[in-house]
Amino acid sequence: MASCITNGIDITGVRASLYPMRTDFANQILTSVVATDTTAVWQQTDLFSTVYRGVAANVVDAAAGLFVNAYDTSTHLVGEFTFSKGCPGDIAGDSYLTGQQLRPNATVIQEKGSFPVHCKYSFYTFGRDDYMAEIAQIVALAKAAGLQPKSAHYCTFLTGTAAQLFAYFDQILNYAHAPMSHYVVEATVSVNSPSLEEQ
Amino acid sequence: MASCITNGIDITGVRASLYPMRTDFANQILTSVVATDTTAVWQQTDLFSTVYRGVAANVVDAAAGLFVNAYDTSTHLVGEFTFSKGCPGDIAGDSYLTGQQLRPNATVIQEKGSFPVHCKYSFYTFGRDDYMAEIAQIVALAKAAGLQPKSAHYCTFLTGTAAQLFAYFDQILNYAHAPMSHYVVEATVSVNSPSLEEQ
Repeated sequence: MASCITNGIDITGVRASLYPMRTDFANQILTSVVATDTTAVWQQTDLFSTVYRGVAANVVDAAAGLFVNAYDTSTHLVGEFTFSKGCPGDIAGDSYLTGQQLRPNATVIQEKGSFPVHCKYSFYTFGRDDYMAEIAQIVALAKAAGLQPKSAHYCTFLTGTAAQLFAYFDQILNYAHAPMSHYVVEATVSVNSPSLEEQ
Repeated sequence: MASCITNGIDITGVRASLYPMRTDFANQILTSVVATDTTAVWQQTDLFSTVYRGVAANVVDAAAGLFVNAYDTSTHLVGEFTFSKGCPGDIAGDSYLTGQQLRPNATVIQEKGSFPVHCKYSFYTFGRDDYMAEIAQIVALAKAAGLQPKSAHYCTFLTGTAAQLFAYFDQILNYAHAPMSHYVVEATVSVNSPSLEEQ
C-alpha cells in the first residue's frame, strides 16, 4: 500500500461536491471553482467533485473558499465534503506540500462567510477500539465552538455561519492530525433550504 | 450507549438525500418520497434526508425505490446514501422490524431502474485492524458484479445501471451484516451529469 507521507509531511485531502438546486447549476459550480484561490493546494476535478490536497489548513481554506464562492442569497445549495488523512490507498505523487500553513482564501471567507448554514456530519476513525470516545470528543468541540450539535440517525447536526463551520473543520482536523493515523470527516452543508420555512 | 438490537434483529438504516439540479427540485423530491413504498421500513424525513430503518434488504429496497422514482431522463440528479449498521448511538425505539425480507419496491426498481448511473462510494468499518482488507473485499464484489470499480482519491468509482448498483448495495450489506459489528457505506449516485458529455 502506498504511503501518505511525502517529505515527512502528512497529506490531508478533501473531496468537495457542490449541488446548486437550480437549472443553471453548471455555471454556478464552474464560477466557484475558478474563483477559489488554489495556489496552496494540489487540485483535480472529476465527474463528482473537486479534490484538494496538501496541508490540512490549506485544504480546509480551499474547501471553505469554494463553498462561499458558490453561495448566493436565493439558491438552495448543498455542498458535500469528505475530509481525510491517512488513507493507505492515497497517492503520494498527487500532492502539493510546502509544509506552510497558507490560507489564501481567508479574507473572502471572512467577508462573505457570515451567512447561516446547516450541516450534517460524521467523524470516522479506523483501526482503534476507542473510536466512539473520539467521536464524542469531536462533538464536544462543536459544542464549545457554538455550533449547537444535535444527534440524529447516522450523523450529528450543526448550525452556525459558514465561516464558523469551516473554522471548526480546521480545528478538528488539527485535533485528529497527530494522534490518528487515519480518519474521515463526511460533512454535508446546506443553505437556503425551503424546508427551513416549515420549521 | 443504546443498543441497536431490537427483538434479536439488528437494525440497518439508510440516510438518503436527493439533489435534483433544477429550479423545481422540491416537487421532484416530494413526489419521489410519496411514490416510494415504505410499508416495510420505519421512515422519517428531516432537513437533509429521508431515513429508512429496518431489515437490510427492506432498507435497500426503499432507498432504490426512492432513487428510481426521482429519476427522469433530463434532470441532473444526485443521491447521497449513508447505509449503516451497528451505530452504538442508534435509537432502538425508532424502528420497524418484522424480521422478514420484504422488497415492496422490487417491481418498480426492475421496470424503471435500467438507466445508467455513476457512483462514488466508500466502505468503512470500525474497531478492527483489518479494515483495509475488508474494503478490498467489498471492491472485489463490485468487480464481480460488473460495476467496473476504479480507485479515486477518498473513494471508489462504479458504473452500471441503477438496478445493478442497488442490488450490489444489498449484496455488500448482506456480506458485512453478520461479521461486522459496525459499518458504514457512504455512496453518492449521479445521473445525467453534463460532465459526461465532455469525457
